[in-house]
Formats: sequence, C-alpha cells, structure tokens
Amino acid sequence: MEIATTTLPPSVNGGTGPHSYAQNSYYQRGALEAAQEIIKREIAEKLDINQLFSGSSTSFCIADFGCATGPNTFLAVQAILEAVKLKCQSSEGLNSDHVPEFHVFFNDLASNDFNTLFLSLPPKRQYLAAAVPGSFHGILFPKASLHFAFSSCSLNWLSKVPIEVTDKTSPAWNSGMIHYTNKEVFEAYSSQFAQDMESFLHARAQELVGGGLVALIVPGHRDAIPLSQTTIKMEFELLASCLMDMAKTVENDCCL
Amino acid sequence: MEIATTTLPPSVNGGTGPHSYAQNSYYQRGALEAAQEIIKREIAEKLDINQLFSGSSTSFCIADFGCATGPNTFLAVQAILEAVKLKCQSSEGLNSDHVPEFHVFFNDLASNDFNTLFLSLPPKRQYLAAAVPGSFHGILFPKASLHFAFSSCSLNWLSKVPIEVTDKTSPAWNSGMIHYTNKEVFEAYSSQFAQDMESFLHARAQELVGGGLVALIVPGHRDAIPLSQTTIKMEFELLASCLMDMAKTVENDCCL
Repeated sequence: MEIATTTLPPSVNGGTGPHSYAQNSYYQRGALEAAQEIIKREIAEKLDINQLFSGSSTSFCIADFGCATGPNTFLAVQAILEAVKLKCQSSEGLNSDHVPEFHVFFNDLASNDFNTLFLSLPPKRQYLAAAVPGSFHGILFPKASLHFAFSSCSLNWLSKVPIEVTDKTSPAWNSGMIHYTNKEVFEAYSSQFAQDMESFLHARAQELVGGGLVALIVPGHRDAIPLSQTTIKMEFELLASCLMDMAKTVENDCCL
Repeated sequence: MEIATTTLPPSVNGGTGPHSYAQNSYYQRGALEAAQEIIKREIAEKLDINQLFSGSSTSFCIADFGCATGPNTFLAVQAILEAVKLKCQSSEGLNSDHVPEFHVFFNDLASNDFNTLFLSLPPKRQYLAAAVPGSFHGILFPKASLHFAFSSCSLNWLSKVPIEVTDKTSPAWNSGMIHYTNKEVFEAYSSQFAQDMESFLHARAQELVGGGLVALIVPGHRDAIPLSQTTIKMEFELLASCLMDMAKTVENDCCL
C-alpha cells in the first residue's frame, strides 16, 4: 500500500491562482464532458439498484480517485449522482420517492490541496462530503463499502518512474530526454502502467460492493492511429511551446 | 445544517509554525490524557460488539468532531482504537482473532487546515483515514453509519455569538467587554450553548448505529467551586498576560 515519498508523483498546483489546477483544467473538463453521456447511459443500463440495497445500507457511496482540487470533480460527482437518482426513481421494487443518501469521497495524494477543495465545495450540494488522502494504488476504503468508483485523467500519472529508466546500465536508460527514444523505454513505462492499473483495480475490487460500478477516463489513443491525429500531438506542441518560452527567458536574461 | 459564514467561529491556526495549533495544544492534550482511562474503561464495559456487528458491516467507524490539525486527534483515535480492539478480542461470540477494519473520520470546519492534518497522519496507522469538512451542528454522515463519536475541547466553541449580545437595545449587550458582566450576558451564552449541544446531539443521534458510543470532553467546572480553584483561572491569567504584552507593544511603539 505504501509508496516511498521520493517516488511519488507531484500533486497538481493547489490554490485558485493563475497557475493553479483549478484555473488550468479545461482540457480535463473536456474529457469529462465527452464521457458524461456514456457514464449516464451505463448507470441507467447496468446499475442494479435492488441488489445494491438488498443489505442494511441506505446510503450510496461515490468516490473520485485522483480528484485534484476541483472544480471538475464536482461536475463529475453531480452527473453520477443525477444518473443514480434517475435510476432509483425508475426502478421497480423501490418506492418511486426512494432516493438514497449520497456519501461522496474525494481522493487524492495527501499532498493534494484539500483546503482549496473543501472551500470550493458546492454550497447547495445534495451529498455528504468527505476526503480520503492517499495513493489509489492501495486500499483506501473498508471492504465492500463503495457503490461507484470514478477516476478521470488520473490513472495516466504513474506511481513512479520505472527503475530501469534511471539505471545507467540498463538499455532503457533515458537520461536527458523528455520523451522515449527506444522500445526499451517504451516497454519500461508500459510495464509500469500495467502494474499500476493492476494495483488500482485490485484495491477497488475489494472496496466495491457486489453490483457496484467503476468508470474510468484514461487518456490514450488507438493503435495504428498516427500521433498527429491524436490529442497527444496537441500536448507535445504545448510542451514544446513552454520549453521555447523558457529558452527565450534564459536567452534574454543572458543578454542583460 | 448551514450556518452563515459571518457567524462561524474562526478555525485554529493551521500549519506547524510557532503560532500553530499543532505547536500550541499541550493544554488540550492534557485534557485528553486525563480522560483516556475513562474512555478505555467505558469501551470495555459498555461497547456491545456483538450488537454492532450483527449487520453486514465489518468495519468500525470512529469520528473525531472538531479534530483541528493534530497531533492530539491522532492520540485520541489510537486510544479508542486500542480499547475497541481489546474489547473485540475478549468478546464471546466473536473469533478471538476478529478485529474489524477501522475507518476514522476527522471532522472540522471547512476552513480548518486539513492539508497539515493529512501530511502529519501517522505513517504506520492501523486505520483507513478520511476527513469530513463542515459544522458538527449539522448532519455529516449517513444514517446509522458511525460506531464511535468523539469530541475533545471543541464543543466549548459556540456556533455563533448570541444575537442579544450584539444588540444595543438588549439588556445582554456586552460591547467592549472580554467577559460577561451581568446575568443577561451569562444567560445568552448559556442558552446558545444549550442550543448548540442539542443540535450536536441531534445530528449524532441520527448518524450513530444502535449500540454506538459517544465520548465528549468539554471544559467546565462544577457549581459552587470558586473560579480561583479551576483551570478557568489559569486561562484568564494567560489571556491577561497576552493583553499586557499587547499593551506594552503599543506603548513601546508610541515611544519610538
């Protein structure tokens, strides 16, 4: 469950200033908006309300793994909540007025700016809110306690840089590069991603109740589609633009 | 459930600097240490483990209402957890190895410094941790979901200044005073305390499972004991000392 501090990925920029995640997450919001209809449809089709409430529980627990500081997480939670409400109201065997209490858990690393998240919680929300600090590659909830696990644009952040990439004697050594230059590096990162996905899913499998759902939004692209036709091209261009700006700043400083 | 922002009491000083609550809460720690043995004894005597686990739940939920930023809350939680573990291991009808998963919720106002709390969580803790932002005078948890509600040195902070005290036309008007000078002021604060306790207990009554326990540490003193024989005397002396220091600072500044 524990990951050494030195290998933890950095958290997103906190606060609400011009460089904060809260002010610079339109791209992630776009991914969420694109997926919202699919999530709503899947909840309508696949969520078995009667099975979920066959025990003594009367509350419905939603968790957003890798929530950052907002505001995207609040939009996602609201969409999930509305879809579950609709499903409850249209389910046979349940009183049409029956809407469960919603308990929403916002998860991110302990270094995430939860202070900003808490202060920007929607004041008229329809749910009880809580936060869970820690890596989503480990257990964060009691067994069979979650009804809906969600994660958007978070699983692409690996738990650590693969050891081989930082090993000078390895063919996957990638010093001085900002992207991969050979298949060994590619394979090292792929392998790390596979390990991370496995640990994430293994933890969620224990935390979810029978009949619970998982919805994941993970940036990626299909095989055989050229990079130039994917959003990754845009990300590389953005990164290149930042590096050019940094280079110009250094150049100007040198000329002073 | 909602309390207007303007009437909310201030949160404790965040961070871990010299003026932080984390560095200035030895007095509150003393109160906790004095109460620990009573809490342990009451858990041993009164907690009905078999009743608590008669449903499908296998986890034991503890909440600290008004936790501040630590480290006192971690000591309290550990003491409660150890006492519950002991009770489980000695209970008939349960496997002696049976120890539930502990789910601990740290509650305080949304303006509390939860970032400091999360970063100082004990690394080798025996529980899953979560935080709940919001006033403990309202509902914060789903119905019948908590097993142990705890609060230490928090309920003495009122939800607001009583309206009468700020009303110039009221006999309880107390402008310019740092303590009460007549019985109307005393009664206004007493009445506010009674209302706050009622709303606190009303919320917990809904959140607790049948057979759950509540432990509260509230500073106070017995009737007929002179103030000079209570800790309140110490607090007044501390406050007076601070005011004297402030007055000296102003005096020195004027002489410059």
